[in-house]
Order: sequence, then C-alpha cells, then structure tokens
Amino acid sequence: MPIPISPTAPPDAVDTRRAVVLLSGGLDSSTTLAIARHEGFAAYALSFRYGQRHQFELEAAAKIAHQLGAIRHVIADIDLRQFGGSALTDDIEVPKDRPVEDLAGGIPITYVPARNTIFLSFALAWAEVLEAADIFIGVNAIDYSGYPDCRPEYIEAFQRMANLATRAGVEGRTRLQIHTPLINLTKAQIIARGLELGVDFSLTHSCYDPDARGRACGHCDACQLRLKGFAAVGIPDPAPYQP
Amino acid sequence: MPIPISPTAPPDAVDTRRAVVLLSGGLDSSTTLAIARHEGFAAYALSFRYGQRHQFELEAAAKIAHQLGAIRHVIADIDLRQFGGSALTDDIEVPKDRPVEDLAGGIPITYVPARNTIFLSFALAWAEVLEAADIFIGVNAIDYSGYPDCRPEYIEAFQRMANLATRAGVEGRTRLQIHTPLINLTKAQIIARGLELGVDFSLTHSCYDPDARGRACGHCDACQLRLKGFAAVGIPDPAPYQP
Repeated sequence: MPIPISPTAPPDAVDTRRAVVLLSGGLDSSTTLAIARHEGFAAYALSFRYGQRHQFELEAAAKIAHQLGAIRHVIADIDLRQFGGSALTDDIEVPKDRPVEDLAGGIPITYVPARNTIFLSFALAWAEVLEAADIFIGVNAIDYSGYPDCRPEYIEAFQRMANLATRAGVEGRTRLQIHTPLINLTKAQIIARGLELGVDFSLTHSCYDPDARGRACGHCDACQLRLKGFAAVGIPDPAPYQP
Repeated sequence: MPIPISPTAPPDAVDTRRAVVLLSGGLDSSTTLAIARHEGFAAYALSFRYGQRHQFELEAAAKIAHQLGAIRHVIADIDLRQFGGSALTDDIEVPKDRPVEDLAGGIPITYVPARNTIFLSFALAWAEVLEAADIFIGVNAIDYSGYPDCRPEYIEAFQRMANLATRAGVEGRTRLQIHTPLINLTKAQIIARGLELGVDFSLTHSCYDPDARGRACGHCDACQLRLKGFAAVGIPDPAPYQP
C-alpha cells in the first residue's frame, strides 16, 4: 500500500527527476537511498514482503524512507515461498558464527532464487508508470560476492534487457539506468558514506535471525559483516543487539 | 498455492527434463503448454493473479493445466495495481471494435508495465528451485506486435541476463533457455498447431471484458484477433460468447 511520506520530502515537481530506490531496511539500501536523495532525485522507495521470517526489516524500511525524505514508500507483496529453496524463506537454520573470511566464497544458503531479478522487475514496472528513468539498488560486489545477482555484469545485462522491455525504451523517450553506487565499496566505506549523508543507522535492520523484540543476534552472516564494518570505521553500531 | 495435477501427467522422474511454462489460460499460452508437453518436458505451469478485472482466465488456466497434463499449476499472487498505469488493472475502459489492422500499430493501452519481465522473473525463480533449464512463454511478434516485451530481441536479452543471475548459470551447471515456440506464427497457425496437439480451446479464455458468466464479448482486441484466427482456420471458436 502507498504510504505518504515525510515533511522533508522535496516537492514532486515535474522538473525533479524521479528514481525508484529498492529499500530493504538494511544498511546498504538505506545508504543507497541517501545517495539518491543527495544526487537530487525525488525518491520512490520500494520494499517487498516476500515471506521473510520476520517483519522488522520492513518496519526499518518505513522508518528510513521517512527519515530520508522519500516521496512514497510502497511495500509490494510477493510470495516466493511457494517455490521453496532458501533459508530466508524456508525453515532451514540460519548459519551462525561462520568465519567472516569464508563469506565471500560460494553462494550462501540464504540466497533467494532470482530475488534481485524479481525486485528489479517490480522497480522497472513502477519506474515505467512514474516515467522515471532511474533505479537505485544497493548491491555490493566486494564484501559479499556470493550472490550471482550482485555482480556488475548481471546489473548491466538487466539494464540492457530493461531498455528493450519498456514502452519508453522502444519509443526512445528515456534510457533507463540502474544505479549501483555501492558496488565497489567495502562495508566500512558504505557506513562512512551513510554517516556523511545523515543516515540514522539505529533505524536500520540487517540481522537474519532477530529476537522477538527485533534485536539483532550478532552472529549470523549479516550481523558479522555489519559489526566488522562498524569496527573498521571505529564507531559502535547504534542498532539494538541481544544482550 | 500448489495444485496437484492430472492423471495424464508424466512421472516426474529425475531423467525427465522439467520446464516452467507461463500459462495465462488464453489460446497462445495453452498451445505453448501443449508444445512443451509434446517436446517431452515435465511441465510446471505458472499463472499470476495480478489485479485482473476477472478470474475467468485463471479458471481457464487451471482447466488447461489439467487437460494437458502439467505436473503442477501454481498461481502466484502479485499486485501491480499499486503502481497503476494500465487498462487491464485500472478502471480505464477496454477499447472495443478497433479495426484489426490497427492493432499492430503502437502500444495498446491494455499494456501492463514490465509484465513479461515480472512473469519471466518468477518463472526463473521457480526454474532455479526445480533445477529446470527451460522456460516456455507464448509471446508472439506477428499478430500483436504492439508490446515491446514480446519481441525476439527482448527475449534474447532476458535470457542473457537470466544466465548471469542464477547460481546454476554462475556455476556452469545449466544454460537456461527461454523457448518462444509461437514467436513467428500467425494466430491461425497457433490455433492449427494447438488443434493438432489436442488443446481443448473451449476451455481457454482470451476476452478482456467478459460478462458475469465468463462469456467473451467478441469485440475487444483479444476477441477480434481470436475470432479472426479461427475464421482463417475455417472452424468456429468453441469458447462461449455473449449472445
């Protein structure tokens, strides 16, 4: 459902360029939204309810969309559970305390099949309706290279396909661009950039396995990468952790 | 929800190649399913509830999946209405009695933004879980060229992107192929091929604007193309029409 957003949002004037920003509520996508806003885009934030184990990351997405002045925040309902195949949507146990240096090798079992392809496809649909030529996605090829759909060659191929898929592309009115401002940044660089741009990281949620109050476990792959990033920047992570 | 299908389905043995077949319940996708079965694939039929005005085409899809011996038929719920922008999901009037020769010129207002991209993305997710390397889609570039995402160059770009998106593609285990067996056929040729392969066209539904009993209007673009096709083959359309 559309949620009207934020007194800090810019006027949605015809001369403001619109962008659809994929927003999970985690650290990377929140920084990506801040970058889109910093570059002057009127931001339309898009999240997904796709059978996650918990709703904390969607609550985080709504708070961050508001904090960073998105024009609208839409949560699209899709159900990937009927296809099975991943720890984030099935009842497989989330891996804990894996050595951080192992995380880049191989594809993690938390991989959701075709997830970014589905997410970008919905972003493309919304962009077409908004007559927006820009989509932002916070993929990263450095700290977490296990996902095939986070690689630059994948993003380029999606962009090429998207420009053949749409009315605007066919009619030559717009040239759709997929922006990946984080793709070559380390987690520490992402955090530093987010802090510069005023992201309130206490609102973000990264953990795959939070407790009932939404506090992070500190041990899953996502928590470990996040904590390592904050340690490298030299500040404590302001998000709540389980004692 | 998964629906177990049909006594005529083949055994889902490991040595049977699996294919995901996009199935709207119309004439083209039903013929496509028959072709996939004829080529020996264990067929997994995929339909979408995406904010259509009516449910008759989904009922048709379920009947055709059963008639043609699909292993499973999944109806995925997605909601494109929140993005707006098309006659099929908004409250814009469906155009009637447009001259058939005009239908190939320009993009019709019944275009749904990024629809095939979203549908193929879901098919890709299911194919990945099934370890299937084949997806069938009944797009056609002859009789209805107004849709940008029905052109061969679009399909080729999607296939290229898909092979970079998935675990199987990255690991070199499978080479995903998007099959478009109807792409160069006229509507009459599609009907003739479907009849050869035993498609019961009385079960299919094409109309954009049926009455409360699901009977076709006979005047929308889809009805006109369908009726013209049956006329060319020289047999009456067995589907029910309003008097």
